[in-house]
Amino acid sequence: MFKANLKDPKLLKHSIDAISNMVDEVGINVTAEGMTLKAMDPAHVALVDFELKKDAFDEYEVSEPIVLGVDLDRLNTILKRAGTEDRISLELDSENNALRIRIKNSSTRTFNLPLIEVSEEELKVPDLEFPCRVEINSKIISEGIKDAEIVSDHVVLKIDKENLYITARGDLGNVEVMAAKDEAMSFDVKQSASSMFSLEYLKDMIKASDIATTVKISLGDSIPVKMEFLAQDMRLSFLLAPRIESE
Amino acid sequence: MFKANLKDPKLLKHSIDAISNMVDEVGINVTAEGMTLKAMDPAHVALVDFELKKDAFDEYEVSEPIVLGVDLDRLNTILKRAGTEDRISLELDSENNALRIRIKNSSTRTFNLPLIEVSEEELKVPDLEFPCRVEINSKIISEGIKDAEIVSDHVVLKIDKENLYITARGDLGNVEVMAAKDEAMSFDVKQSASSMFSLEYLKDMIKASDIATTVKISLGDSIPVKMEFLAQDMRLSFLLAPRIESE
Amino acid sequence: MFKANLKDPKLLKHSIDAISNMVDEVGINVTAEGMTLKAMDPAHVALVDFELKKDAFDEYEVSEPIVLGVDLDRLNTILKRAGTEDRISLELDSENNALRIRIKNSSTRTFNLPLIEVSEEELKVPDLEFPCRVEINSKIISEGIKDAEIVSDHVVLKIDKENLYITARGDLGNVEVMAAKDEAMSFDVKQSASSMFSLEYLKDMIKASDIATTVKISLGDSIPVKMEFLAQDMRLSFLLAPRIESE
Repeated sequence: MFKANLKDPKLLKHSIDAISNMVDEVGINVTAEGMTLKAMDPAHVALVDFELKKDAFDEYEVSEPIVLGVDLDRLNTILKRAGTEDRISLELDSENNALRIRIKNSSTRTFNLPLIEVSEEELKVPDLEFPCRVEINSKIISEGIKDAEIVSDHVVLKIDKENLYITARGDLGNVEVMAAKDEAMSFDVKQSASSMFSLEYLKDMIKASDIATTVKISLGDSIPVKMEFLAQDMRLSFLLAPRIESE
Repeated sequence: MFKANLKDPKLLKHSIDAISNMVDEVGINVTAEGMTLKAMDPAHVALVDFELKKDAFDEYEVSEPIVLGVDLDRLNTILKRAGTEDRISLELDSENNALRIRIKNSSTRTFNLPLIEVSEEELKVPDLEFPCRVEINSKIISEGIKDAEIVSDHVVLKIDKENLYITARGDLGNVEVMAAKDEAMSFDVKQSASSMFSLEYLKDMIKASDIATTVKISLGDSIPVKMEFLAQDMRLSFLLAPRIESE
Repeated sequence: MFKANLKDPKLLKHSIDAISNMVDEVGINVTAEGMTLKAMDPAHVALVDFELKKDAFDEYEVSEPIVLGVDLDRLNTILKRAGTEDRISLELDSENNALRIRIKNSSTRTFNLPLIEVSEEELKVPDLEFPCRVEINSKIISEGIKDAEIVSDHVVLKIDKENLYITARGDLGNVEVMAAKDEAMSFDVKQSASSMFSLEYLKDMIKASDIATTVKISLGDSIPVKMEFLAQDMRLSFLLAPRIESE
């Protein structure tokens, strides 16, 4: 048995929108603590780690831990049908092996999403040592990524003792976005670090800046970058493998 | 002679927008009572019955009943050029066999739409007995139709003693939209009824929900559904033939 | 050395947007008085004459007159990245032979636009005698041009002692936009005049109505039309050759 009402439908809507471009089919874990989702993209370049805590719901009942195998594109299509004033509830329909998504307002709109088979093996999120950890306004990162897109398909993220940098080089010209330490909510840098990443993935990840005003960036030299978008009762975290710098 | 100034340009603009996807060429009847338009789509699945009463105009002069044969796509393209603050007037230009559409604001913009030959035979709107008649917020219907579109190309409309239902089934999952009797402005149900309809037509019809806050739905078993969008001095009514249920 | 901060980024953004559809590569002249740009489109039908005065900047330093050869499409792409609240500064990066465009807000975003070779010969703007000079709300012209587009790919501009007219004829019908003398800010007409022009160019030119509330139109018989969009410290002027009337 699983039954839950979302307090703020926007959190789930925008998170699934950001994740669904990266991952197709996924198992959503439902436990007494809340919903979690861990998945890698098919090319094994990005890892998503999403958590929606029990407190993000104003009703939340689950009799035993379950795994809901869903097609994220379909789930995204359904969630997009909810308006800003609508209430969303989720329920397991065991009989039909489906997830029942209910959107309530003056009418009650019920969507039955068939569940699919997914591998139940737990993904291990690698434990990395990051020399740089910076928390910053997510709009700075999302605008910087869009700036970089006009000249290249990859960027270098760099953090030193004073600033965070997003740089891209291309035939059209170069772009450098710089955010000073003073602009950051927290700025913990043991030593400078930089790595190069594919914009294709970053473009999807920054969609999460719609629901989280800040993003925590953990960076090292030629290791994956971690971007954590945090909101009340929600955590959407991405780990993105670096590209090999060939320049 | 025919000359008229619209009080609220939005009514004509949105009505023609909803109708022009369904019907190409049509005769608009102009009489002392107002303008009316009756037409079937080329596949003879939907019948449109539109009336814009004399009182929708702040100036309205017609010397004798006339029929204006127009290409609705062209008329729609012209009406879309009018902004929300603009005034629209219509006039018969007998000399050039054209409808003169004038959009006034700080400039005067005059469009001459050539009139075309149309068959003058009056369409009979069939007189049907409907066991169910419900008047409801038009947004409930338009959102429900859009919900159904994500899984199928047809829907079942059903009304019983308690509720109105819009249901659709597809490989992607199922959708059921339910609006309770309490939400309806009027709810007159002699016995339950249901019929299946093509979404292709309903999609165009619900555009009228922009100008009418409520819609009157008349439904029976495997007979056409009637949807009447009503506003002050305007009635836009559709009759849509059922699809044969093959499921 | 050249270094400048724009007071209102919108002026440069929208001007370059209007010009970049017409002209690809251009030399921007930078002198102690401000920035100017004169260019013809590749087909030699339209001539652009743009001036952004020194007073449009709150910081403006130039050691000697220079010509910045730029690809306007690329410059436009960069300027579009600036939001309404952002500050834009321009600087010559002599070392890298590039124009450095800096967008400042909570982050500092620096774009390096490589400079290109352009012919340095000064374009002569022909000195024409216009019998009609009218200054009018630019929205009247931009809406009129869009009206004309629905029936044709060319328009006739006509001014007589009482009115300004934009007319277009096509299979779809005819359009006539009329603005009376009373609506004009100034209306200086020695004798009636009319000429025919291609909508392809006018469509781009009217983009400038976003930054200038009025446009000065200078018209004659079968000579180019001059359209000057004027704002505080900015002048964006177009000269468009007439089409030969074949009707």
